[in-house]
Amino acid sequence: MSILVVGSVAFDSIETPSGTVDHCLGGAATHFALAASYFTEVRVIAVVGEDFTPEHEAVLTRRGIDTRGIERAKGLSFHWTGSYTGSLNEAQTLGTDLNVFANFEPKIPDEYKDSDYLFLANIDPVLQARVRSQMSNVKMVCGDTMNYWIADHATNLAKVLRDLDVLLINDGEVRMLAGERNLVVGAEKVLSMGPKTLVVKHGEYGATAFFSDRSFSSTKISHPFRAPALPLAEVVDPTGAGDSFAGGFYGYLASQTELTPAVFRKAMFYGGVMGSFAVERFGTERLQNVTHEEIDARFKLFMEISHLEGA
Amino acid sequence: MSILVVGSVAFDSIETPSGTVDHCLGGAATHFALAASYFTEVRVIAVVGEDFTPEHEAVLTRRGIDTRGIERAKGLSFHWTGSYTGSLNEAQTLGTDLNVFANFEPKIPDEYKDSDYLFLANIDPVLQARVRSQMSNVKMVCGDTMNYWIADHATNLAKVLRDLDVLLINDGEVRMLAGERNLVVGAEKVLSMGPKTLVVKHGEYGATAFFSDRSFSSTKISHPFRAPALPLAEVVDPTGAGDSFAGGFYGYLASQTELTPAVFRKAMFYGGVMGSFAVERFGTERLQNVTHEEIDARFKLFMEISHLEGA
Repeated sequence: MSILVVGSVAFDSIETPSGTVDHCLGGAATHFALAASYFTEVRVIAVVGEDFTPEHEAVLTRRGIDTRGIERAKGLSFHWTGSYTGSLNEAQTLGTDLNVFANFEPKIPDEYKDSDYLFLANIDPVLQARVRSQMSNVKMVCGDTMNYWIADHATNLAKVLRDLDVLLINDGEVRMLAGERNLVVGAEKVLSMGPKTLVVKHGEYGATAFFSDRSFSSTKISHPFRAPALPLAEVVDPTGAGDSFAGGFYGYLASQTELTPAVFRKAMFYGGVMGSFAVERFGTERLQNVTHEEIDARFKLFMEISHLEGA
Repeated sequence: MSILVVGSVAFDSIETPSGTVDHCLGGAATHFALAASYFTEVRVIAVVGEDFTPEHEAVLTRRGIDTRGIERAKGLSFHWTGSYTGSLNEAQTLGTDLNVFANFEPKIPDEYKDSDYLFLANIDPVLQARVRSQMSNVKMVCGDTMNYWIADHATNLAKVLRDLDVLLINDGEVRMLAGERNLVVGAEKVLSMGPKTLVVKHGEYGATAFFSDRSFSSTKISHPFRAPALPLAEVVDPTGAGDSFAGGFYGYLASQTELTPAVFRKAMFYGGVMGSFAVERFGTERLQNVTHEEIDARFKLFMEISHLEGA
């Protein structure tokens, strides 16, 4: 089934211990869409500038991603400059040039209106809410956010949270959103803000899903679920790892006919799988060229590293 | 089969967000022995002072732990004062009074000489090596260390590492020991220093085992294994969590007839199980009174939170 994602399609200039890249294609919606495209049909809503060429668009369309919702505006695309030379776990933002993104007014093409799944990537919660309200018939809404919106746009964010099926954020964001240091207590508080399910990303340590009574229609799960991350000898570029996790996770969910606890757990593993590919190369390079055989093999590896009886 | 553990039996004064305790029974060997006692026979080598009463000894003997190797010396027992009010992930040491431990000369009672498994808890590597050399017939040697020995006693520590079957340390200690930020590369370096297998404890995120070609006699495993930790709504006192992990891990290993990859993986889970109990109360309180039913139930819970098909 089809996923509609709204978020940034951008250019990133990145420095990591493995090297530097200048103006490579990036953005949360880009990473998400590429990762999800291995599982299901994906449609993108974003705005780009005149520096977004047909070659950039081809990165998405080659993977079958629908780009009709990517609006062209006068000026330059959103450009992010960041460094991971201090720590690979956290980016140091050196520059954020919103450019055409500053006046982004998401418009949903008619052809997108029948999308079954909605992903609200990390953008202004006002825009997330605007898209959400126009897509009232979707089966599921999943969203992301970040410290900036949690700290300074709490009221707008609260409106988005009220209506989410799954919120995907990291440890620090849970602690900030809940105002609570303990992750389990923090997760309970976040679930009480609206999301039926909370997926907390721990970077190199994997991810944990916390369920509420509303997570599944027929089954109640009182304990969390932990999916591993793959220990990697080299993380070339962590940029987009969380969005790629979200793409693998949500892409797999959308490819299944029913949301059961077993499907949800497997989706967490596929999130880890796609995140582990994403960081192997700069930007979206690796996500452009994964094969289904590689995805299957890595899923098996995730079983081997986490299951008592192996794969 | 029997485990011989050498390490500290001490008193701890601890402050955590949940409260404070003064001079409660603690020490690496104590936590380790209590946790391991649920799986196999345990014998302790340590030194205590005149403040160590029959009531303290009964904490160990009630669990069937052999205390004949606990030497009594004039003066006070080792006393550690620490606080976790800044972060539950790392203790802030406020005081270390070595007392009788300053002149500790481990002596191995004849009755201990037939021990099958040796655990070298976190003490001066010179003492670890001395005990090791007197126990040359053991089936397996497992050890722990800490940043203090890594930084200032590298040569002595290197001699201990050369001869270890399993080294159990945390992320920071791997990075320090290997002089390497990436955990996988760091683990390779540590394995090249001698240990056949390295178990890295990640605190609330679980633990990862890295295997070498020498880990098992007949099977080669080229990928690590990750065991989860239980997400807990309240960590009353993290003191001894790592030693309790080691006790559950090594106790289970020693209870099995053969060291296979499957047994090793299960031992990692039992390590997590015993660590999760340890932190529920101050000091050793919880570890004194776990039931086998509770251990079985929690092992099942660890399966539920980590396995795609549940327990």
